[in-house]
Amino acid sequence: MTSVTSLFASVDTDLCLLTENLKNLVGARHPILYAAAEYLFGAGGKRIRPAIVLLISRATMLDQDITPRHRRLAEITEMIHTASLVHDDVVDEAEVRRSVPTVNSLFNNRVAVLAGDFLFGQSAWYLANLGNLEVVKLLSEVIKDMAEGEIQQGLSRFDTTITIETYLEKTYNKTASLIANSAKAAGLLSGVPIEFAEKLYNYGRHIGLAFQIVDDILDFTASTEVLGKPAGSDLVSGNLTAPVLYALEEKPYLEVLIEREFAQPEDLEQALALVKESQGIERSRKLAAYHAQLATENLTDLKPSECSKALVDMAEYVLSRMY
Amino acid sequence: MTSVTSLFASVDTDLCLLTENLKNLVGARHPILYAAAEYLFGAGGKRIRPAIVLLISRATMLDQDITPRHRRLAEITEMIHTASLVHDDVVDEAEVRRSVPTVNSLFNNRVAVLAGDFLFGQSAWYLANLGNLEVVKLLSEVIKDMAEGEIQQGLSRFDTTITIETYLEKTYNKTASLIANSAKAAGLLSGVPIEFAEKLYNYGRHIGLAFQIVDDILDFTASTEVLGKPAGSDLVSGNLTAPVLYALEEKPYLEVLIEREFAQPEDLEQALALVKESQGIERSRKLAAYHAQLATENLTDLKPSECSKALVDMAEYVLSRMY
Repeated sequence: MTSVTSLFASVDTDLCLLTENLKNLVGARHPILYAAAEYLFGAGGKRIRPAIVLLISRATMLDQDITPRHRRLAEITEMIHTASLVHDDVVDEAEVRRSVPTVNSLFNNRVAVLAGDFLFGQSAWYLANLGNLEVVKLLSEVIKDMAEGEIQQGLSRFDTTITIETYLEKTYNKTASLIANSAKAAGLLSGVPIEFAEKLYNYGRHIGLAFQIVDDILDFTASTEVLGKPAGSDLVSGNLTAPVLYALEEKPYLEVLIEREFAQPEDLEQALALVKESQGIERSRKLAAYHAQLATENLTDLKPSECSKALVDMAEYVLSRMY
Repeated sequence: MTSVTSLFASVDTDLCLLTENLKNLVGARHPILYAAAEYLFGAGGKRIRPAIVLLISRATMLDQDITPRHRRLAEITEMIHTASLVHDDVVDEAEVRRSVPTVNSLFNNRVAVLAGDFLFGQSAWYLANLGNLEVVKLLSEVIKDMAEGEIQQGLSRFDTTITIETYLEKTYNKTASLIANSAKAAGLLSGVPIEFAEKLYNYGRHIGLAFQIVDDILDFTASTEVLGKPAGSDLVSGNLTAPVLYALEEKPYLEVLIEREFAQPEDLEQALALVKESQGIERSRKLAAYHAQLATENLTDLKPSECSKALVDMAEYVLSRMY
């Protein structure tokens, strides 16, 4: 099994620098923000998004060093991601993430809304000041998609009529759009041709989908300890993911439990059991594997290098998490 | 006394079109968003920000019609403003604005955070797709400033040590930056020279400051009915504005009341009375008049037209509201 550490070895120094920069960029203005930044960009985050940006940057620059713009793009990517996490936790009323209290529970909703807006605001500004209109368009598309995904998820809670296609669309908006567009942007900053950049987009899109599907599976199969948040929390909050949507095809009673929002005692336990008894988990694993496979097929234009190998291995690593 | 209606007469049709477009841009994707858009962009809003953008657009294009980009800029300006209102109301736990319930009180914090993020996301996207990097930079500066102003205000509540300078800096970030940068952007879209664009920025900056100082005065002098929200609500929430900061210089007991956050019965009434007894209101009026004056001094490059006259009259109108 591939570990994240070995996967990211070739951009390890870059990632350390990124974390320091993010703490300074965000925390410089106010002590409370500094505390939030220390906490948000400190231990716990896997930094998968900036790692992919940095790996693609290095894999496309080859012998040349990556530019300050590549680094800034990686930072922006992580800032946008973190901003969305902070607001998601307000929306979901989540109390724990990565085994630490969320900003809304540690401080309050007020500070969490402020901190998220601040991060979005800072990223929009750093983005514009990258000075590349094409990259600005790609990343602003992400900000739009993430907000749309947040709406799609937030306003269709406990809705058992949503399809796997709708789920994938929402998952693209919430998770894969950021990875896809920033992967493409990293390529553009290296000056790759547009067809090559499109493949990098598709790599990001499929690895992002695979990644999120695996996360959604783990919400059913992993322990609270491993997850760093209560297991089954998607289901509790009415966020119906691939395993549930597949399970609904086999277990009609699941619909009853979900639609009454687990109002009766034992409803949640029963629902979790029904998902586990069904083919839902297995079918979701196949779906994740399918997207991980599609991801790697888009890397054929990359010249062999340590970084391009890490991008291929990433697909394997994503899947390895689900067993 | 100038009325808003006569002031905006030359862009009245533009503003109607803008309102319709905003409802469609925002509401098209989801019924709940449509309800929110109807409500957010419906009656009540004075639409001062897009009006200024449209007036500057027409005043700088002269005989030529304004372009779709000018219109889109005006829409983006109102979207950013509305997004910030929605999040401000979450942060301030406000229940009423413009005599109607806020999104957080009508729906809940969840929907308000989602709706605000959605509006920010949409504006970032429309902004990037204006395709003018200079304009993108100006407006992304606004998004950053507003988030910073939100932080400055949100994290210095009940802080009696803040100065008038800090207050003006926060007011620039929260209110004037949007007007200043979008005024400059409107000029740039018309192709005015950079020095001219800088003057438009300064017009927006000073009219924005005057506008907010007047609003802050009205919080003390106007009735709940006129305000469309409870009078004194800035003070209650610990947002210390010009009248209070000036009053603090004369009335040391005010500091005591504020620092214990009006914990005792009658504290708030007493604080409001101290502000009214002091020179705080009068000095704030002078401050507003000073900025309104500076605003008009920046309009000398504009050729005489109905729209340029409206921009001058705007300064008079802003001040007329405070008596």
